[in-house]
Amino acid sequence: MEPAGMAGAVPSTLPDPVRQALLAPLVDHHCHGVRGGALSRAAYERLIAGAGAPPAPGTTHFDTPAGTAVRRWCAPVLGLEPHAPPAVYLARRAELGAEEVNRRLLRAAGVVAFLVDADGADTPDQTLSAAEMGRLGGAAADEILRLETVEEEVAREDPAAAAYARLLEERLAARAGGAVALKSAVPGRRGLAVDPARPARAAVVAAAGRRLAAPKEPLDDPVLLRHLLWTAAAVAREHGLPLQIHTGYGAPGDRGRDSGYGGRDPALAAGLAEALHPAGVPLVLLNCHPYHRHAAHLTAVFPHVYLDLAPPGPAAGPACPVGELLDLVPYHKMLFGSHGRGLAETCHLGALHFRRALARALAARLERGEWDAAGAARVARMIGSDNARRVYRL
Amino acid sequence: MEPAGMAGAVPSTLPDPVRQALLAPLVDHHCHGVRGGALSRAAYERLIAGAGAPPAPGTTHFDTPAGTAVRRWCAPVLGLEPHAPPAVYLARRAELGAEEVNRRLLRAAGVVAFLVDADGADTPDQTLSAAEMGRLGGAAADEILRLETVEEEVAREDPAAAAYARLLEERLAARAGGAVALKSAVPGRRGLAVDPARPARAAVVAAAGRRLAAPKEPLDDPVLLRHLLWTAAAVAREHGLPLQIHTGYGAPGDRGRDSGYGGRDPALAAGLAEALHPAGVPLVLLNCHPYHRHAAHLTAVFPHVYLDLAPPGPAAGPACPVGELLDLVPYHKMLFGSHGRGLAETCHLGALHFRRALARALAARLERGEWDAAGAARVARMIGSDNARRVYRL
Amino acid sequence: MEPAGMAGAVPSTLPDPVRQALLAPLVDHHCHGVRGGALSRAAYERLIAGAGAPPAPGTTHFDTPAGTAVRRWCAPVLGLEPHAPPAVYLARRAELGAEEVNRRLLRAAGVVAFLVDADGADTPDQTLSAAEMGRLGGAAADEILRLETVEEEVAREDPAAAAYARLLEERLAARAGGAVALKSAVPGRRGLAVDPARPARAAVVAAAGRRLAAPKEPLDDPVLLRHLLWTAAAVAREHGLPLQIHTGYGAPGDRGRDSGYGGRDPALAAGLAEALHPAGVPLVLLNCHPYHRHAAHLTAVFPHVYLDLAPPGPAAGPACPVGELLDLVPYHKMLFGSHGRGLAETCHLGALHFRRALARALAARLERGEWDAAGAARVARMIGSDNARRVYRL
Repeated sequence: MEPAGMAGAVPSTLPDPVRQALLAPLVDHHCHGVRGGALSRAAYERLIAGAGAPPAPGTTHFDTPAGTAVRRWCAPVLGLEPHAPPAVYLARRAELGAEEVNRRLLRAAGVVAFLVDADGADTPDQTLSAAEMGRLGGAAADEILRLETVEEEVAREDPAAAAYARLLEERLAARAGGAVALKSAVPGRRGLAVDPARPARAAVVAAAGRRLAAPKEPLDDPVLLRHLLWTAAAVAREHGLPLQIHTGYGAPGDRGRDSGYGGRDPALAAGLAEALHPAGVPLVLLNCHPYHRHAAHLTAVFPHVYLDLAPPGPAAGPACPVGELLDLVPYHKMLFGSHGRGLAETCHLGALHFRRALARALAARLERGEWDAAGAARVARMIGSDNARRVYRL
Repeated sequence: MEPAGMAGAVPSTLPDPVRQALLAPLVDHHCHGVRGGALSRAAYERLIAGAGAPPAPGTTHFDTPAGTAVRRWCAPVLGLEPHAPPAVYLARRAELGAEEVNRRLLRAAGVVAFLVDADGADTPDQTLSAAEMGRLGGAAADEILRLETVEEEVAREDPAAAAYARLLEERLAARAGGAVALKSAVPGRRGLAVDPARPARAAVVAAAGRRLAAPKEPLDDPVLLRHLLWTAAAVAREHGLPLQIHTGYGAPGDRGRDSGYGGRDPALAAGLAEALHPAGVPLVLLNCHPYHRHAAHLTAVFPHVYLDLAPPGPAAGPACPVGELLDLVPYHKMLFGSHGRGLAETCHLGALHFRRALARALAARLERGEWDAAGAARVARMIGSDNARRVYRL
Repeated sequence: MEPAGMAGAVPSTLPDPVRQALLAPLVDHHCHGVRGGALSRAAYERLIAGAGAPPAPGTTHFDTPAGTAVRRWCAPVLGLEPHAPPAVYLARRAELGAEEVNRRLLRAAGVVAFLVDADGADTPDQTLSAAEMGRLGGAAADEILRLETVEEEVAREDPAAAAYARLLEERLAARAGGAVALKSAVPGRRGLAVDPARPARAAVVAAAGRRLAAPKEPLDDPVLLRHLLWTAAAVAREHGLPLQIHTGYGAPGDRGRDSGYGGRDPALAAGLAEALHPAGVPLVLLNCHPYHRHAAHLTAVFPHVYLDLAPPGPAAGPACPVGELLDLVPYHKMLFGSHGRGLAETCHLGALHFRRALARALAARLERGEWDAAGAARVARMIGSDNARRVYRL
C-alpha cells in the first residue's frame, strides 16, 4: 500500500529534488477555521458540500468528487483502508474525536503556515481560531482581516454620517497591524466591474447616511464599497499588506445570484488593478474558478496581480488547475491555497490535490523534455511557499 | 479488429463490473427524431453539421470532427471498414436503405429509452416520431413537451387576450399527461438572465394583446416568456415533471445572434433556479457548452438543478466533458443525452462518445488509485441511466 | 540528444506521412516584425512578456512559461545546451548578433510565408519590415493592412468632414492592392458587440467632424468604427481579401481595461459575421484566447468564419489549443499563426508549440484508433498551410 498522507501523493519516480520540493511544507494562503466539535452526519454532509444545499432527495453528498476524495485520501490518515464506506468513516471520526481528527488531518497536510480568514463562519463559536488551527496543525497561523467585518462593526456603532469614513479608516488601521492581508468578498458578489475611481467625500457622507439607517444589513452600497476598497488600499500600503478579493464561483452558500452577469469574472477587476497599481499594493485574485484563464491574463500584464490556485468550489474533487496555469502564468504569480473551511478534511485535501496535480504536471513536462529537474523543483517551491512568503512578508 | 459498436468502445482492461456498467443500456434524456427517408449528399452533409450552414467553398462537412467520427465508428455498424471514404459510406447507406440504417445505428447505440423532443425538426413529415424511434431502436420512447409549441398553438387559435393565460394553462396541463418532461428553448435564445419574478396578471393580458396581433411569429415577449415558464412550473409540479431549458451554444441553426451578450451562460439561470426551488421542480440545464463549468456550480449549490452531458454542438467530435465534470459535479446531477437529431449517426455517436469518454476518465482514476471499481461502476450507472430514471420517474 | 529545431518537435514514432505533414513548411498568417538590433536584458525581458509590464519586484520574466520555452527550445538553435541559464542565453545572443540570431530562429521555424502586420510596433525604426522578415527567414513575406493606421493617416491630413469618407475609401482601396488581408484591432478593444448595421452617411459626416477636431487621437468613435469596418468590407470584397479582427486577450500592452465587460468574447462578433456574410468576405477571428470554444461555435455555423490557433497571450508557453479544437472545429476553418512579435524567439516558438501540440493530438487519436494516418496527415497540412493558401489566395 502507498504511504498515507502526502508521501503517497508524490510519485517516487520523480527526481529527488522535485519530489522534495513537492513534499516541502506549504504556506496555505487562503483557508478558514474548521469545526472543533462533534458533527452529525447531516452537518458533516453539508460541510463536505461547502455548507451549501442539502443533498437532493434520495442522494448523499458523499456521492460527489469531494466525498470520493475524503473516503480515498482521508480514511488512511484516520487509520482506515482507502475507500472506506461513509458510515465506517464517520464512525471512526466519532471514535477518535474531533480534536484528534483535526490534529491528524491538519498535521498530515504538511503545512508550515495557515493564513486564516476567521470571518464568515456559519457557526463562529464552534469554529477554531487561527491560533487553534496552528496549534493542532503544528504550524504557524496568521490572520487575514475581512474588510466587511470591520465595516459592519463601524456601522453598528452608529457614528454620525460625517464621522463614518474617519472611524472606518482608524479601525482598519488599528486592526491591520495584527493581520498579514486584507480581504474583501463583496466585489465578488456585487460584480467585479467596480468603478475604479475614488468616490468623492460628499458622496461617501451621503451614502453613509443611508447606510447608517440600516446598520445591521450587510454592506451593499456601491459608493461605500468603493470607498471601503480605497480606504483599505491606503491602509494596505501603509502596512505593506496585500489585498485579497474573491472572484469566480465557489464561496460557501454562494448561489451566484446577486451580482449582475459576468460579475464574477476576475478580468473585470482590470480597472481596480489599474487603480491600485500606483499604490504598489499586491492584488490577490482568490478562487477565480471557472475563470482562471481570465485571471491568468491579469497576472501576466500587471506586476502586482497574483492568482490563487484554489480547488473549484463546493463538491469539487482533484480539479486543481495548476497544470493548465503552468503554461499561462508567470511562476512568481501563483499561490497555493486550500480554501479549507469547516472540515479539516478540506484543508488536507486542498494540500493533497495541489501536490498531486503539480506532481503530475511537472512529471509530464520532465518526461517530454520541456523542463529540467532544477527548474521544476524551484517552481514547485515558489508556488508552494516562496511566493507567499514574499507577498505576505512572512 | 475491435468489435463494432459499443463493445469496442470500452477497453477490456477495465475491471468487469466497470465494463458492464459502461455497456449497460443508457437512457438518452435529450434527443430528437431522425430522418426516415433517403438523403442526398448535400442534405446529409448539412445534417452532420447540425443543420447549419453549407460547407465553405471548396470544402466538405465530412472534414469535421463529426465527419471523422461517422467514418470511423458508424461505418463498421453498416458493415464497412473503419475510416471508409465519404462516398463509400453514403453509397452503403443508400444500399441498405434508411430504415435498415436507422435500425442498425439506433440498436447498436445500446439505449433502453429515448426521451424525444419531437418538435423543432426542419422537416417534420420526414422525421421519425418518438414511437418510431423506439420501434427501430428496440427501446422505450417517451415524449418531451416543448412549451413554445403549445404556446404557438394557443396563439394561433386567436383567443381573447384575457383568455390567453387560462387557455395556455389548460393546454399545457392536457399535454403534460403524455410527457416525461417540459422543455423550453426560448430562454437560451433570448438570454438566460430572465427576470425570475412571476409577471402580474394585467401585464400578461396586455402582452397577450400584442402577441395575438402577430400569432404566427415565434414567442419573443419577455413578459409572456416569464409567464410561460411560471405556468409550466405549476404544471410540472402538478404532474411531477422536470423542466428542461436550453443553455449554451449548439442548437441547430443557432447562430448565437439574437440574445444579448452572455445570454447563453447557464449560470445566469441562478435566478430562475432560485424561483423554481420552492416548487420542487427539477431544472435540467441542457447543452451548457462551452459553459459546463458554470453549470457545474449551479448543480452543486441547488438540490434541484441537473446537468446534461451533451456533445458540444454542431460539427463536434468526441468532446464529451464527462471527465472534467467528474471532478466538479455531484454524481447524481449528471445525465447522459446524445443530442441526436436528424441522423441516426448522431444518436449512435452521442452514446459512443459518452461511453468512451467515461471509460477513459474512470480508467485514469482507477489507475491512479483515486477511485475503486465498485464506486466507478456505480457512478457509471447513475450517469448513464439511474439518474434519468429517478428525475424523469421512468 | 534530440535534433534541434522542428525535427525534434515531432515524435519519430508517428507514421511517416503524418510526420512529414507536421514538418512541412507552415504559412504563418499572423505575425509582426521582430527587432533588428541589440537588446538589453531589460528590453529582452519586456519582449518575452509581450511588451507588457516589467517583472514584479524580485522576479524575472524568465520565470514564465515563455522564458522556460526560450531556454529549452531556442538555446539549441543558437548552439547551446537545452535549459541554458538566462545569462548564458543572452550572452550567446549578443555574441552571435541580432542578424544571425534572427536568421537562425526564423529559418529553423520552418515557415514558407510570413503574413506580417507591420503596424503597431512600439519601436518601428528598430523593427524588421515584412520584406526583411522574409529575407532572414528564407520565406515569402506578405503584408497585412491595418485599418486603423490608414484611418489615422486620413484623419491627420485634415480633410473636410464631408470628404473624410471618400478619402478613407480611396486610401484603403489604394493600399489593399499590396496586402493579403485587412485587419482591425479596434473592435477587440472597444468590445466586439459592434452594432452590425451600416451607419447612415449623415451620421458619418457628423462623427467625422468631431473626429477631425482631434486627429492625433486613436479612433474610438463607434459610428466611425462601424463605418471603417463597412468600408473595409467593401474594399475586401473588391480585392478578394479576408478581414482579420482581434478578439480575446493577449494583444501586447493590452490590460483588458478599455472595453466593456465581455467585449473580448469572439461570440459577440456573431452580428458582424452575419452582416458580412452576404459580401462573401472571410472573417478571421484572431487570438480568441481564452474564448476559443466560443469562437469554435461561429466557425461551425458560418461558412465564412475562420479561427486563429494562436498561443494565448503574453508569457504563455506551450498552450496551443489545437488538440481541443480538433474535436470542435471544421478542419478547414483553423489557421496556424505564431503571433510572433518583437523577438524571433516568439515566431520560432509559435511554430514549435503548434507542431508539438498538433503532433501530440494526432498521436493520441491514432493510438486510440479514432483517426487514420492519411486523414491525420491531410488535416495537418490543411491547418498548417493549405487553409491559409486558400483563404489568403497565396
